[in-house]
Amino acid sequence: MAKFVTIGERIHCISPAIRAAFDNKQPEAILKRAKEQLDAGATYLDVNIGPAENNGPELMKWAVELIQGNFDNVPLALDTANKAAIEAGISVYNRSKGKPIVNSADAGDRMSNIDLAAANDAIVIALCSNGPIAADNDERMMHCQNMLEHGMELGMEATDLWFDPLFVVVKGMQDKQMEVLEAIKMFSDMGLNSTGGLSNNSNGMPKNIRPIMDSAMVAMAMMQGLTSAIVNPCDQRLMETIKSCDVLKGNTLYADSYLDL
Amino acid sequence: MAKFVTIGERIHCISPAIRAAFDNKQPEAILKRAKEQLDAGATYLDVNIGPAENNGPELMKWAVELIQGNFDNVPLALDTANKAAIEAGISVYNRSKGKPIVNSADAGDRMSNIDLAAANDAIVIALCSNGPIAADNDERMMHCQNMLEHGMELGMEATDLWFDPLFVVVKGMQDKQMEVLEAIKMFSDMGLNSTGGLSNNSNGMPKNIRPIMDSAMVAMAMMQGLTSAIVNPCDQRLMETIKSCDVLKGNTLYADSYLDL
Repeated sequence: MAKFVTIGERIHCISPAIRAAFDNKQPEAILKRAKEQLDAGATYLDVNIGPAENNGPELMKWAVELIQGNFDNVPLALDTANKAAIEAGISVYNRSKGKPIVNSADAGDRMSNIDLAAANDAIVIALCSNGPIAADNDERMMHCQNMLEHGMELGMEATDLWFDPLFVVVKGMQDKQMEVLEAIKMFSDMGLNSTGGLSNNSNGMPKNIRPIMDSAMVAMAMMQGLTSAIVNPCDQRLMETIKSCDVLKGNTLYADSYLDL
Repeated sequence: MAKFVTIGERIHCISPAIRAAFDNKQPEAILKRAKEQLDAGATYLDVNIGPAENNGPELMKWAVELIQGNFDNVPLALDTANKAAIEAGISVYNRSKGKPIVNSADAGDRMSNIDLAAANDAIVIALCSNGPIAADNDERMMHCQNMLEHGMELGMEATDLWFDPLFVVVKGMQDKQMEVLEAIKMFSDMGLNSTGGLSNNSNGMPKNIRPIMDSAMVAMAMMQGLTSAIVNPCDQRLMETIKSCDVLKGNTLYADSYLDL
């Protein structure tokens, strides 16, 4: 089995430093966060430029070339509601370390991002929702099927759709946690890849608890067959847990130094 | 679902201080370790007096009365190869907080410990082995079936046999880890309880790594339906993980203070 794929989430315009870096085309804050995440073991880096309604295409090109140019063509997830910006980013993207990821499609208004991924030989994160959180796994799997069929009709490999069950917050939806974990098992039983914004589950918890809860969740999700997650790779406990589960699953060979690799 | 049951493993004659306490009937070291484990959240305490060939019955009685007398009838696992000692311990055991656990039977020479548990209305840890580690899950489940049938013929509740798949060491048996985890799922699918000496998996690893690996393992095992484990409850990371998985499984209600309970 393949090693678990981590997508580092920290180049995000919600951060004031990153927002300013995008606004003023100043590389420093972006390169710093890219380096931190790669040093911590991230596989992919997410690049969230926000809606970027005015200058999206030009901004995403700049960001892709900046980050790939400085970090040996690290593979990237291109994260914006601006489709022209994603296409522009892909036009300058170097695939030597992995296909670009389109972040994200869903089974509602954003279904057309699957077309975009198909047209550009990209991976796409496919949220199992048509807007609101799915009411149950019947609905979740219906969305999954619809997106899978759409992608395959367009000639995509099934494994290039990474299905996201949408992790839900424990504080408020504690009784839905096992349902999300069962959905991951269903994806896995179908041979599908999966991903998600794992830390949603610990939203609103005290800061010191979040890495503990997120680590428990990622281990349970990896047992269910989760193949990837969008994470803060600077969360040491989380990354240690992911590496340990990769050892237990036989995705990586054990060595006493496995946490340092 | 019921909360995960932790069986604290630290009152064990392999410890020189505990060995001396048993030899000289000095309560201090035993009471200290009992308190530490209960403060850390242990449900049951294991009491391992070793082979105790000479004075087993009298020693186990002393230990049971000492620990239950000082800690509000905390439930205990009676752990020795001396069957007379286990029976003597049960004869003075107070059941108000839970049945005694016989540690342990197997599907070979120690099958008769199931008879002992049945005759004394006790829980029994049932190792899925007839001596050597089972070669595969076919063998593991054959032993499980044999012990289950034997216990039920003797009138036991199926849930009073706690099946132990026998956790195996990553360093040497890395490729068997998923098999053990699959066995736990089979127990769970049959509605059976399960347990095991979880930290076997990290035997021989650097000391700082063991809590990390054990935590990953317990979360994966709880996802598979493990209902109990024999652990060091003073391993804070492990206990935090168990409590978090109990929240995610809905076994306990989330509160911001859940780690302190």
